[in-house]
Amino acid sequence: MKAVALLGGPKAEWPQNLRQKLLHAQEMGQLLVGVDRGSLLLLELGLKPDLAIGDFDSLKASELGELEKNCPDIRYSVPEKDDTDSELMVKTVFKAYQVQSLTIYGATGGRLDHYLINLMMFLAPGMRPFAEKVRICDRQNEIRFFNPGKHEIERLSDFPYIGIWNLEAVQNLNIIGAKYELRHFNSSYPIMWGSNEFKPASSSFTLTSDQGMLAVVYSRDLKKYDNI
Amino acid sequence: MKAVALLGGPKAEWPQNLRQKLLHAQEMGQLLVGVDRGSLLLLELGLKPDLAIGDFDSLKASELGELEKNCPDIRYSVPEKDDTDSELMVKTVFKAYQVQSLTIYGATGGRLDHYLINLMMFLAPGMRPFAEKVRICDRQNEIRFFNPGKHEIERLSDFPYIGIWNLEAVQNLNIIGAKYELRHFNSSYPIMWGSNEFKPASSSFTLTSDQGMLAVVYSRDLKKYDNI
Repeated sequence: MKAVALLGGPKAEWPQNLRQKLLHAQEMGQLLVGVDRGSLLLLELGLKPDLAIGDFDSLKASELGELEKNCPDIRYSVPEKDDTDSELMVKTVFKAYQVQSLTIYGATGGRLDHYLINLMMFLAPGMRPFAEKVRICDRQNEIRFFNPGKHEIERLSDFPYIGIWNLEAVQNLNIIGAKYELRHFNSSYPIMWGSNEFKPASSSFTLTSDQGMLAVVYSRDLKKYDNI
Repeated sequence: MKAVALLGGPKAEWPQNLRQKLLHAQEMGQLLVGVDRGSLLLLELGLKPDLAIGDFDSLKASELGELEKNCPDIRYSVPEKDDTDSELMVKTVFKAYQVQSLTIYGATGGRLDHYLINLMMFLAPGMRPFAEKVRICDRQNEIRFFNPGKHEIERLSDFPYIGIWNLEAVQNLNIIGAKYELRHFNSSYPIMWGSNEFKPASSSFTLTSDQGMLAVVYSRDLKKYDNI
């Protein structure tokens, strides 16, 4: 089973046609998950979450009542706890629901403390095993995570630009077969290698490292029809 | 002299009344800087940049002509170079113009490779001396950077939430006198400590580390009048 989750980030960052994407996912048997205010946003879209996680302290009693009527599995997190709601959601879908992969929407934009938690939570030791099974999507970006090793990075249509991000210290980073290559690079601190691209005729490039988590940020500029 | 710079990030992330802020800054004698498309955005706001930096490859010839007529110092960067336009701007204002501080707008949102470059560029050895003199501002966040040492973090009105971010491995991180404290914390990887707050009666808290750059992210939720 796959899972798709909506967090409470600003709607302005949602991909186009998010409702249709989520509806289609649920119709295909994927687990639909709401995180905190994201659960309410799912109800507002006319979708019933299969699982809702959060402390829900920003919801009115009537909103929480509506959620309780429409969601079979609500897990209340404890504020001032160790795991953030986002981390708790990732652990729950992979451990309790044994899903194979997770697509996250509503994780970007807005408050930067929330945004960076969502981007960097996979660095925690208990989260690293799930990193490669997750993608974070918004209207301009798709983010995928890679543990050390050798990875073939596939082209995604609609996303012409590639950023390679070592989220932490990295040893022997190699970017091979992309427009801009890098060989045997070491760094004690994170770097975003932005504005890279696939070579015109190639559908993939190779990314390797001996140590340090990497992310690939697929991105695109907004076009006029994107309703900036 | 102080400097204020506008980058080419999405207008939706601009603070309210950005034009007035920039106009006021220039009237007070601050250096007004445009970075790449941000230079054009300044002209569109009716403001003439004192300095413009970029490769300007996304500008039409007529737009570049307009910029050349209205800006006394244009520095053309070389695409496919080592420094990004953002880094080149920071180095130019501090080295060539000897400014004391720099406020950056238009650095957030949009393409995540650009956004993360702007947040993490101060980790490069040649950039670290400037980190504490810079703040990055958008409609919901203000970000300040701190090298190792002891720092008093002052309350900013309008920003109730605080995130503490070790941008890299950190040794002996202490957050003392905030709502949530942390003592003698070590990590080999970056962490965002989000949703912290000032104590009700206090106007500051203390942040210290022995090693590792830190950022303080002041943030706020959007309110109804914010025109989400």
